[in-house]
Amino acid sequence: MVIALLTDFGTKDYFVGAMKGAILSINAKANIVDITHEIPPQDICSASFTLLACYKDFPPETLFVAVVDPGVGSDRRAVLLETENYYFVAPDNGLLSFIFEEETNFRVFELTNKDFFAPKISRTFHGRDIFASVAAHLTKGVEPNELGDETVDFVRFESAKPKKISENETEAEIIHTDNFGNLVTNLKHSDLPKDFMLEINGKIIKKRQEFYAEAEKDEVFMILGSAGFLEIVAFQNRAERILSVENGEQIILRMTK
Amino acid sequence: MVIALLTDFGTKDYFVGAMKGAILSINAKANIVDITHEIPPQDICSASFTLLACYKDFPPETLFVAVVDPGVGSDRRAVLLETENYYFVAPDNGLLSFIFEEETNFRVFELTNKDFFAPKISRTFHGRDIFASVAAHLTKGVEPNELGDETVDFVRFESAKPKKISENETEAEIIHTDNFGNLVTNLKHSDLPKDFMLEINGKIIKKRQEFYAEAEKDEVFMILGSAGFLEIVAFQNRAERILSVENGEQIILRMTK
Amino acid sequence: MVIALLTDFGTKDYFVGAMKGAILSINAKANIVDITHEIPPQDICSASFTLLACYKDFPPETLFVAVVDPGVGSDRRAVLLETENYYFVAPDNGLLSFIFEEETNFRVFELTNKDFFAPKISRTFHGRDIFASVAAHLTKGVEPNELGDETVDFVRFESAKPKKISENETEAEIIHTDNFGNLVTNLKHSDLPKDFMLEINGKIIKKRQEFYAEAEKDEVFMILGSAGFLEIVAFQNRAERILSVENGEQIILRMTK
Repeated sequence: MVIALLTDFGTKDYFVGAMKGAILSINAKANIVDITHEIPPQDICSASFTLLACYKDFPPETLFVAVVDPGVGSDRRAVLLETENYYFVAPDNGLLSFIFEEETNFRVFELTNKDFFAPKISRTFHGRDIFASVAAHLTKGVEPNELGDETVDFVRFESAKPKKISENETEAEIIHTDNFGNLVTNLKHSDLPKDFMLEINGKIIKKRQEFYAEAEKDEVFMILGSAGFLEIVAFQNRAERILSVENGEQIILRMTK
Repeated sequence: MVIALLTDFGTKDYFVGAMKGAILSINAKANIVDITHEIPPQDICSASFTLLACYKDFPPETLFVAVVDPGVGSDRRAVLLETENYYFVAPDNGLLSFIFEEETNFRVFELTNKDFFAPKISRTFHGRDIFASVAAHLTKGVEPNELGDETVDFVRFESAKPKKISENETEAEIIHTDNFGNLVTNLKHSDLPKDFMLEINGKIIKKRQEFYAEAEKDEVFMILGSAGFLEIVAFQNRAERILSVENGEQIILRMTK
Repeated sequence: MVIALLTDFGTKDYFVGAMKGAILSINAKANIVDITHEIPPQDICSASFTLLACYKDFPPETLFVAVVDPGVGSDRRAVLLETENYYFVAPDNGLLSFIFEEETNFRVFELTNKDFFAPKISRTFHGRDIFASVAAHLTKGVEPNELGDETVDFVRFESAKPKKISENETEAEIIHTDNFGNLVTNLKHSDLPKDFMLEINGKIIKKRQEFYAEAEKDEVFMILGSAGFLEIVAFQNRAERILSVENGEQIILRMTK
């Protein structure tokens, strides 16, 4: 059974190794796969997007362990999300928002049963002591309802959804910047009118293309990315740099009839 | 069976996770190994070198999936290279040039059979939809000739080979800069006369040593690297920084009788 | 059997891929796990700490391959450390110091038997040619004493231990800076008096907390980290940056009655 990891722990420390060690100590046969450990520190929205963008590529039964956890040690809760095909273990801080939006049939359990935590729980490293531990137990056959009670009261942030602000305008935002400097917006195909332009940081973007290899060098244009969101990209350059923007930057989508 | 991945996708995004998920969805038993995902964006030459430098360390039957693909979405082709011991799946853009040079007995197949691609192929992410998918099918027993026709018309770049420019001079270049700032040249042992010096960015390098631990701090010298190429290194410092050069920088090798 | 890797090779080059290939060529069933490959280049102390901080999370019988090796190619020796539950393969340069300190019952073997090295040993890449090779053979059942003679003469650095410098003062140091800019000191719980303050780079730190989520933004305070060492952290900021310090920086611990 695949356990896929996504964190903001970085890859320079012992954190990821410790999580993997903890998993293997409970289930030596776990097939651990790294999605990324380089979510920008504490950027829950970027984590949520990244998970959304790839989870369906994994085989059914895959268990995702997603830890971006600014509230570690406080009283924020921990949850298991069970969908038709997948499991997700994460802090209850909005990290699973995009998955909640995508899935219709799911159950959420609060992780409270300490039998499936590490014997000693540090105040600062629940990634290892709670999330990795619970995940490993799940892959050994523990049932979701053994971990804690089902709950309907979990954190979903709405901010990442585009908002209509006038008849012709929708406010959206940059939710993720990828390795190539491409800017992923929270605009899905279904949010896009037939004709439109974007305004971002005082600049207007009108051009829309099918793929990366057909533009002028440095030209900024839109593309429907492989994750299903509209992206702002620049041919052979970083749109992020050309537009001087970062995650969270506001975008206005304007219908042009 | 080992599937070894090499890309320029970086490790911050969902790209690598998506490729791994796609592979595991087709072959749950695939043993996926990362070589690197940090090839400088779109640097086909550096990718080709990196693959060359380690492929023979892998067990026979290993399948390499190498994706540095500036032309994704355009009409560049995709190929499978089958050598005596290994398989390589890659875009047909020169990425396999150093392997073509190293191997004498090989076959190349154009990847055209859509039965082995993802059901829906995005325009921007062939790493997942074509290369990972084909690779996973290969590890399940699909034969190379089921993937498409054999071809002798594939892209090999010659630029990465040293060129004799006068009786005593050969023009070479930096093909890769490693994590320690060491500069890997395209000069192999067999390209080196008995006595020679290098000129690079206006500086002359004459000293040649056997290994890293025997120089003055900051001293720049040559060494025959573990990948079989001449490298320019600096003791306890980055030759890259001392010489102010980067990948592609020209080198003149000059015989000194 | 798990083989866990820790190096300063970075993840941009072929080095890590080559090590993994070499392991799989000898033992195709090895379960290879990355701890990190981003130890600061040649920072043996940081490597030693990182290993210490996570090795007990791994299942018994795990074999750690730790390579931070500024002396590669010189006459520094290579060793196997066998503890009650684990194996460690590393250059004999102090990298295992923290493990030696933590474990009471262990044996050290000098790696001299070339039968378990690669057939051809490069001068610059013992990570692949010696350490990976020996590790893979160990996971196939080779006994420690087949690798070379037991030795009691191995390198342990003492510098990383706090030193009492007056009745009320102890000199300590920063041994590691984590991904979040948190500064890990070499002070363990048992080194701490009831009341104390720290002086570092001319600044005094008095506040001590239980976990990260309870401070003012930018406030610098102490915390007992998940690895068992006192850490200097800043809420929602990098203590490293606020204090302008780096690995090796001296700290004075001063008893306050």
